[in-house]
Amino acid sequence: MPALAPRTKQEPATFSIDSYLADCRKLALTEIERQIPTDARHTAGLYELMLDYPLRPAKALRPALCMAVCLALGGHMEAALPSAAAFELFHNAFLVHDDVEDDSLLRRHAPTLHRKYGVPIAVNVGDSMLALALQPLLDNVEVLGLGGALRIFKVFARMARESVEGQMLELAWIRGKRWDLRDRDYVRMVHKKTGWYSFISPVQVGALAAGAPAATVSALGRFALTLGIAFQIKDDLLSLEGTEAEIGKDALGDLWEGKYTLPLLHALRTVSDTERQQAVSILSRPRGERDEPAVRRLHAIVTGNDGASLRHARTVADRWAQRSRRALDDVFVAAPDSIHRRFLHELVGFVTQRSS
Amino acid sequence: MPALAPRTKQEPATFSIDSYLADCRKLALTEIERQIPTDARHTAGLYELMLDYPLRPAKALRPALCMAVCLALGGHMEAALPSAAAFELFHNAFLVHDDVEDDSLLRRHAPTLHRKYGVPIAVNVGDSMLALALQPLLDNVEVLGLGGALRIFKVFARMARESVEGQMLELAWIRGKRWDLRDRDYVRMVHKKTGWYSFISPVQVGALAAGAPAATVSALGRFALTLGIAFQIKDDLLSLEGTEAEIGKDALGDLWEGKYTLPLLHALRTVSDTERQQAVSILSRPRGERDEPAVRRLHAIVTGNDGASLRHARTVADRWAQRSRRALDDVFVAAPDSIHRRFLHELVGFVTQRSS
Repeated sequence: MPALAPRTKQEPATFSIDSYLADCRKLALTEIERQIPTDARHTAGLYELMLDYPLRPAKALRPALCMAVCLALGGHMEAALPSAAAFELFHNAFLVHDDVEDDSLLRRHAPTLHRKYGVPIAVNVGDSMLALALQPLLDNVEVLGLGGALRIFKVFARMARESVEGQMLELAWIRGKRWDLRDRDYVRMVHKKTGWYSFISPVQVGALAAGAPAATVSALGRFALTLGIAFQIKDDLLSLEGTEAEIGKDALGDLWEGKYTLPLLHALRTVSDTERQQAVSILSRPRGERDEPAVRRLHAIVTGNDGASLRHARTVADRWAQRSRRALDDVFVAAPDSIHRRFLHELVGFVTQRSS
Repeated sequence: MPALAPRTKQEPATFSIDSYLADCRKLALTEIERQIPTDARHTAGLYELMLDYPLRPAKALRPALCMAVCLALGGHMEAALPSAAAFELFHNAFLVHDDVEDDSLLRRHAPTLHRKYGVPIAVNVGDSMLALALQPLLDNVEVLGLGGALRIFKVFARMARESVEGQMLELAWIRGKRWDLRDRDYVRMVHKKTGWYSFISPVQVGALAAGAPAATVSALGRFALTLGIAFQIKDDLLSLEGTEAEIGKDALGDLWEGKYTLPLLHALRTVSDTERQQAVSILSRPRGERDEPAVRRLHAIVTGNDGASLRHARTVADRWAQRSRRALDDVFVAAPDSIHRRFLHELVGFVTQRSS
């Protein structure tokens, strides 16, 4: 882990966001593996199944955010490591349950867990990751003391609540066939559903692990909130524009699953009445009844529209990314330069330019 | 809550285990409702769904165990209350996910959550209850201090792990069509799957909330472990012998679902080869393909067998209940008498005699 070992060393000549992410991921996975009980008899292979998703190729963005913020603020890697592992477990638990809920076919270039082992085992593997995530939060006591561990636990409790509320919001829209939504509805849902657990909490916990003052924790929350929304809109665009090889899940997966995306909602507000009715009729079918021609038609409606819906999404994503960059600069205006700070800075550009 | 208000008042002339349970349940539900965010806008009715199972008629045994142990050891109700609410939330989360995993039709005299609202919402409601259960564990800090809250959190972390391991054990047996199991395999699975979260943890947390010494916590763990196994075997017998009105879920539900029960496993070991082959062939079908005549045939095989399998299960349950009673007496040999102690004592008899 050369990139992460020293806290304030000279930046290497060739800083790469990918290798920074890879280093963080390796550390987080090692920490997750350390959490697995050594006596795993009578567990029927549960822990191998639990590692299935985490070991598939992935960015492990959440651990990296937590670690980078902690190190950028002068904290130690050991202070962030247990929480980073907990975030990765929590994230993967949500992926497994999400895949069940959406009946997705592919995740990270391979069949989803419930498609491999059935819904019962997949639901339980998700629960198991949530259960295992409690252990590193206890380990925080040794590294950060009771007070520090408690502050971090509070963030996790809030995060868990926001995530399930956001998920419910989306599921209720799907169930209610709600297709008349504004950008602000979308932003609220995304903020709760993925913003809290993917961005806000990892960043705030990283700051708490470094012992940062409350004002810094809040300011970093603003950075993370805005970054998360930019990230999600970019994710929406990728699902419309990327190939399966690039995105690691079903190409056009969001359309197959009838997911709420910013470009889709914009298209529904702005295309002709005929196209809107066509789109809503396709989206209102249960997933199993949405076939290839229907999904292609939906794709044509969203990406057509004179390109206005894609342009709108790009513009909105860029606006959130700019806010994010400003919030980050505010925090680090007086902080020493480091590769960790550089990672956070480049991440904003990476999110808006990424192709996977 | 007349029965619970004073700690050591004279026993009322008519002590009833049912009214003791009802009092505890009322307190636990109030505490759960207190945990629900007051600003529940933009949550799409999630919290009403979360209360669906807890508000259905139920014993709420876990909160009662936690409270009774705490009070019997001289602790205060307020010290046990947050944990009691967390146990009830955790239990209901597991019921919701279990019902998805087993595709059960009825729970507590009404359709299961996923049958009412679909699998996606049910999985998320289960996750939501797990998320909300973190909050009372934080509240413990105010009542018990950081150290006390931490000791209880440790029990919850272990409990969550044991539960998902036990669940995996059972799901792996189902998937592997394992029907050649001994009583000790069954006991190990039950110990992990329900023993930890239904008995051992509530009792140990109750003791910790009362500030009991480690030796008392351990001894109460033995009481709870043995009681839990007796309880589960009695549950197995009820599913074979009870009517739907009595047990609140599908009559013969365990056979419909192909659940591992002590009487079934005994029958498979002792009936004729022909009957065993018939039974295994029925059990090996996916649930959807097990029809009424098949389930009736299975029922006849298990309850037939000259009554030997039912007798065996009753004998084994009684043996565990006796151990439980002895363990309880050891703990309370020198403690003052109280309705809480009486509740625990009568619970052992109740478990082996209960009809619902």
